[in-house]
Amino acid sequence: MSMNVVVIGAVAVGSKAACRFKRLKQDANVTLIDADEYISYGGCGIPYYISGDVSDESQLRSTSFHMVRDERFFKEDKGVDAMPGTQALNIDRQNKTVRIRKKDGSEEDLPYDKLVLGTGTRPKKLNIPGLELKNIYRVGNLHDAMQIKEMIVSGQAERAVVIGGGFIGLEMAEALSDMWELETSVVEFCDQIMPGFVSRNLARMAQNRMEENGITFYLSESVEAIEGEEKVQAVKTNQRTIEADLVIMAVGIEPNTDLAKDAGLEVSPAGFLVVNDHMQTTDPDIYAGGDCVQIPNLITGKPGFFPLGSMANREGRVIGTNMAGGDARFPGGVGSFVIKVFDGSLAGAGLTIETAIKEGYDAASVQVAQFDRAHFYPEKEIIYLELVFDKSTRRVLGIQGFGPVESGMFARVNAVATVLQYKPTVDVISNLELAYSPPFASAMDVVNALGNAAENFIEGRFKQLKPDEFKECWVDGNKDGCYFLDCRASADAKPFEEKYPELWKSIPHDELYKRMDEVPKDKKLILLCNTGVRSYEAQINLAAEGIEDTVSVAPGMAGLKECGLKF
Amino acid sequence: MSMNVVVIGAVAVGSKAACRFKRLKQDANVTLIDADEYISYGGCGIPYYISGDVSDESQLRSTSFHMVRDERFFKEDKGVDAMPGTQALNIDRQNKTVRIRKKDGSEEDLPYDKLVLGTGTRPKKLNIPGLELKNIYRVGNLHDAMQIKEMIVSGQAERAVVIGGGFIGLEMAEALSDMWELETSVVEFCDQIMPGFVSRNLARMAQNRMEENGITFYLSESVEAIEGEEKVQAVKTNQRTIEADLVIMAVGIEPNTDLAKDAGLEVSPAGFLVVNDHMQTTDPDIYAGGDCVQIPNLITGKPGFFPLGSMANREGRVIGTNMAGGDARFPGGVGSFVIKVFDGSLAGAGLTIETAIKEGYDAASVQVAQFDRAHFYPEKEIIYLELVFDKSTRRVLGIQGFGPVESGMFARVNAVATVLQYKPTVDVISNLELAYSPPFASAMDVVNALGNAAENFIEGRFKQLKPDEFKECWVDGNKDGCYFLDCRASADAKPFEEKYPELWKSIPHDELYKRMDEVPKDKKLILLCNTGVRSYEAQINLAAEGIEDTVSVAPGMAGLKECGLKF
Repeated sequence: MSMNVVVIGAVAVGSKAACRFKRLKQDANVTLIDADEYISYGGCGIPYYISGDVSDESQLRSTSFHMVRDERFFKEDKGVDAMPGTQALNIDRQNKTVRIRKKDGSEEDLPYDKLVLGTGTRPKKLNIPGLELKNIYRVGNLHDAMQIKEMIVSGQAERAVVIGGGFIGLEMAEALSDMWELETSVVEFCDQIMPGFVSRNLARMAQNRMEENGITFYLSESVEAIEGEEKVQAVKTNQRTIEADLVIMAVGIEPNTDLAKDAGLEVSPAGFLVVNDHMQTTDPDIYAGGDCVQIPNLITGKPGFFPLGSMANREGRVIGTNMAGGDARFPGGVGSFVIKVFDGSLAGAGLTIETAIKEGYDAASVQVAQFDRAHFYPEKEIIYLELVFDKSTRRVLGIQGFGPVESGMFARVNAVATVLQYKPTVDVISNLELAYSPPFASAMDVVNALGNAAENFIEGRFKQLKPDEFKECWVDGNKDGCYFLDCRASADAKPFEEKYPELWKSIPHDELYKRMDEVPKDKKLILLCNTGVRSYEAQINLAAEGIEDTVSVAPGMAGLKECGLKF
Repeated sequence: MSMNVVVIGAVAVGSKAACRFKRLKQDANVTLIDADEYISYGGCGIPYYISGDVSDESQLRSTSFHMVRDERFFKEDKGVDAMPGTQALNIDRQNKTVRIRKKDGSEEDLPYDKLVLGTGTRPKKLNIPGLELKNIYRVGNLHDAMQIKEMIVSGQAERAVVIGGGFIGLEMAEALSDMWELETSVVEFCDQIMPGFVSRNLARMAQNRMEENGITFYLSESVEAIEGEEKVQAVKTNQRTIEADLVIMAVGIEPNTDLAKDAGLEVSPAGFLVVNDHMQTTDPDIYAGGDCVQIPNLITGKPGFFPLGSMANREGRVIGTNMAGGDARFPGGVGSFVIKVFDGSLAGAGLTIETAIKEGYDAASVQVAQFDRAHFYPEKEIIYLELVFDKSTRRVLGIQGFGPVESGMFARVNAVATVLQYKPTVDVISNLELAYSPPFASAMDVVNALGNAAENFIEGRFKQLKPDEFKECWVDGNKDGCYFLDCRASADAKPFEEKYPELWKSIPHDELYKRMDEVPKDKKLILLCNTGVRSYEAQINLAAEGIEDTVSVAPGMAGLKECGLKF
């Protein structure tokens, strides 16, 4: 008798598991159910549909060869019985059936030999008044997306407030502001955007890029109410009231695992399904994957949560293979991500410095700034990278970066992200063998320079000042504690020396050997150049003369500028 | 007493070793000598200087902060005594001195505690008549480059012949043809360009792109003479005579290790210096790196030769660290490379399928074609990747690809190149965690799809036909042996069905289940769609019906077209 497989949830993991399994077991019956009418769509594409980059919602539901992934497609192209608009009511593990309610309201028990749960997440809800007002959207599905777009296209929205400065929040803010020129604000509870994904310094660079493009940010503010009559009119935070006719709620997600819990499958305290490395739940005939499960974080070894369409697709394939009798494994993840920020990009993998410290590592991070291509090549842009590592073991714990939207930034993060599973030391990053030729990279690539900086830091040679520390001491603080030694060419440094005669000294690095006696010996020196190369050399030269109380501004003037910090 | 370090060769490895060492040992004396007047220049940038992308030769000799790396720079910025125009005559290992001849002709013995050899390579010479003629260049150094540019700028060159279709040859051909519109031909002894770096199939894609941009290729031809009176007038091959007023010789390089050999250091049969993983020669006080040494090929474990400026820079840093008492190691290389081919790029790492077979592996390779970004994202291009692996052990031996010049291609090769040192299986590639969002990648990235294809191939599900096999059977061969089942939509397939009614059948993949009885059972079927996705699915469907004698055109119609193959 042919095997019955039922898959609950037909977005990323479910569709992939169903189709992969069916390819391996052509004689099996595969049923793919989903409560939504729209199935197997590219949810990650929603912001690009709203922005208009993707002109029609059906493109998100289509294959690369322009076929809409509907019931007919699944049947005729994939041999899978898709049942959109069908709810899974409960799982009877004893009798191996799933109770479903179909579009027409009728109920039925679907028998299964193997069952897959790809039930995903639902948007978190804030506990505030006003959520019942019109024109508040959670961007959880294609229906929301179509309504938002309808509202914008018909000119009903002029001022948008996005609540939440994570992935979806930022992508939505860009979509609303860039293409539709809505007056857009982002309210974020934390003191930085993308908390947990990048350091404060890199977050500041991305935020600055968005501000330059007209988006307003309110950090460290909590939303207390949404105000309006019938329709939303304003968002009230603990600091201010922001007028709005469109509100996007992007305050996070939580797993949809009630069905699994009710069936007695093991679920973590945070609500995620527990699976082994074959993607089996605590019932070996029930598999689960995608945003509703936890998988090992390969950096910490602890359970991790990586709500990414890419992860879900790969997990789905592993599930499909294993249901067909294979032995595929999914060892875990490091959380590689990338997000477009207008003409910039923010990307990373592994732990941020803040998270690494919280996790108990003897953690530090270094920043470098360097051109993505050979410095003599005409087209080039600066990439800012940050490497997070354990000082005692030298193990690399994470990488993050901000750079151009062109894939050179993405290329660097990929090169490190993929080796993180092997627990490399910083020395491995120094020698990492990226492809090289001048139109693509430098002879000493920015990734290698990053490993080198980490090594120099661990050995005590490189003592850095990061942009947020600079901000504390210069922008927010008492400038008297600062004394700058500017290692750039005179022409660049002179205007600053003239503006701050008591606090600024220009000695171009190539004059430092000769002018060593002009360096003040009683002050903590902040060494500065354009990207941190010459100021690091100066730090070495000064240390050899016994002048050890120095810091070098890690990503240089270019980095401070990218952060929006000004003198 | 302070330590004396002498470095012979002041391009990539030598300059890096000298400066790194000096940073670590500020009180040491470091002398950097080179026979050339020009030192520490970006030799890899020469084609871009000739093309005009880099307007002035001094840019190749400058730092990113626009300082020319001359004697003054090394002295005042780096604390290193550079001696350009100085020849190293011999090494006296007993007394630890190097005999040098200076610019003014005087000789001197330089004492050393540690010595570094970064003597690089010299261009190979063909044993043919006519090499004494004017306007034949080897692009071995900046002098050649300046003369070539002078000749072009002054309008003395109209027709160029490049001998050699490797890196330098192709980069030079593009430089001459693209910016200066010289009538340019490339003569290559092998039956493909970039032999040993990419498979015939990928080489064909790159060649086709160059041909579309006006460059002519003569493959499998050997040059027998260069003809002319005083100046070059033509290149004579075993097949034809090609008129030329400029000839670029790019037939390979050989190591410059006479000095080392004379000093009794161990040199391989091919002439490369033997070094350990600290980059020490057989004399522990003498280090060597860059193009004149052999280092382990991390795929084969055998000695490898990777003449890349990037490798040399990283080796130089390791040497600098170790001379200062550190313990840095350089384990070897996998030969990551990338080359710009007009608006395309060719990249790779590890072994090609041809090399892997020669090395005795039970090797195979698979090809995939897929968009670099989400297929619904407006800006996207197809990337063609090839994975080389051992069928028995599933170990990945290499990756190569052709795609857009935009760094998305570079990003994919980097992601795999950096993990090759860990000897991954194809299953690791299936799950490789590249960063994802629609403007950068697909949810199932092309790299993961490549791993999946390899797994399907090993399991016997995926039976492919590569473009060169297609060419053999269709373009060069007897078409009667071919029968195409075209799985694309009818509109795409119909014109072919009409043109070749006996050899071509259109059954769109979504009609295959229903029209199974129309599939001929007595013929070897060539399954075809646009990128190989639907034809692979069809292969699975047919196998389930007992129709097993099928092959799927791996990179699809798109791939055949990219190869310049036509129906």
